[in-house]
Amino acid sequence: MRIDVLPVPADLSPAAEAGAVVVVDVFRATTTITTALANGAKFVLPCAEVEQALRLYEPYDENEAVLGGERDGVKIPGFHLGNSPAEYSEERVANRVVILTTTNGTRAIDQARAAEKLFLGCFLNLSRLAGALADESMVTIVCAGDGGRMGLEDFACAGGIVAKLAPRSGNLSDSALAARLLFRSVRTRLAEFLSSTEHGRELARLGFRSDVDYALDLNSVPVLPRLAENRIQLQV
Amino acid sequence: MRIDVLPVPADLSPAAEAGAVVVVDVFRATTTITTALANGAKFVLPCAEVEQALRLYEPYDENEAVLGGERDGVKIPGFHLGNSPAEYSEERVANRVVILTTTNGTRAIDQARAAEKLFLGCFLNLSRLAGALADESMVTIVCAGDGGRMGLEDFACAGGIVAKLAPRSGNLSDSALAARLLFRSVRTRLAEFLSSTEHGRELARLGFRSDVDYALDLNSVPVLPRLAENRIQLQV
Repeated sequence: MRIDVLPVPADLSPAAEAGAVVVVDVFRATTTITTALANGAKFVLPCAEVEQALRLYEPYDENEAVLGGERDGVKIPGFHLGNSPAEYSEERVANRVVILTTTNGTRAIDQARAAEKLFLGCFLNLSRLAGALADESMVTIVCAGDGGRMGLEDFACAGGIVAKLAPRSGNLSDSALAARLLFRSVRTRLAEFLSSTEHGRELARLGFRSDVDYALDLNSVPVLPRLAENRIQLQV
Repeated sequence: MRIDVLPVPADLSPAAEAGAVVVVDVFRATTTITTALANGAKFVLPCAEVEQALRLYEPYDENEAVLGGERDGVKIPGFHLGNSPAEYSEERVANRVVILTTTNGTRAIDQARAAEKLFLGCFLNLSRLAGALADESMVTIVCAGDGGRMGLEDFACAGGIVAKLAPRSGNLSDSALAARLLFRSVRTRLAEFLSSTEHGRELARLGFRSDVDYALDLNSVPVLPRLAENRIQLQV
């Protein structure tokens, strides 16, 4: 298995598109999507832009769908929910469609849409995800980062997936090797270390400290979100 | 001091441009430029494109200037020198202008041109460089990488500069923190580890294994190349 990690979103190579791609946005889009689906959401429609989210919501009423998302970490005016996984409870999302737009995560998903197989990863489903990828010949992990800059939480999570898929050597790109090294050097103090990242501190400042702790809870929600035909659903 | 690392070349923010910027291309452009200047080259004219290099060479004869560079690791047809630091001996470059174009390094320099202060870094001049940056308030280290992909050797070298500038905490971006962690986890086996990177293996395959060893020789050429008015010269 060849494994590559993109430290920030970039166009996929033809080889990457033909294989399995994982988008990681630990704080918070992929953590939130994983949570919403585990709590019974029918499917998630990821949108890069607010206008598109509003347009997709039009045919639904509030019993059928919820409109969620943030810009600069804060809930979008008029939307039902923000981007905090805590908001995506069973009560709010079970049997409903979730339409979601976020600053980095849903844009990274949008950029990776052409992939043959597109999964969503985070610390909550790390081992489950690695299990599903075990037989792939090419895996590309895309870190959503923050405004085109590397986010340590995403890079470390990518490294955790690499470590699970290729514990020893493996055919790793330089960035996959770097991510695996990084994960290993912080894994015994993951929560302490990643809550001190730029994005972790920013979320704490905005009042979302509990989201940070929640997002770092390794293997706590072992489900497998996958994008197919523009919908993210759980693969069983 | 605020320190940021760009894992792959990207446009500089206004804050980065106003501060000190270091471009790192361990294999091999900044290693070669550092070597050429230490061996007495008058100055280096970095060019993004071959055509520009040929145009800049026009007014000179072979006693005044040498034309150097590579594409895909190999010397450009008609050029005097490739991109191997071993070629930039005192005999070949002393008192001459070096006109250089390479696949990644000189392009990364070109993209960072707008910086107020632009230095060239590599393992050879790591401590010297860090010493010169000690009083800056904002330092941005740009890793040249390879065709828009992260190169482990550049990221580790950036991490070494960060470790020297901010041995303990410091105001580090996530990527600066990641680079420092990476450098620390490989520094006792730097040569072994970095010669196994994608770019290191590729150079060995092309017959440049000794360039790899040379480029990893920490603090062996303690000079300070700086770009000013389109020329790279040593700062004394």
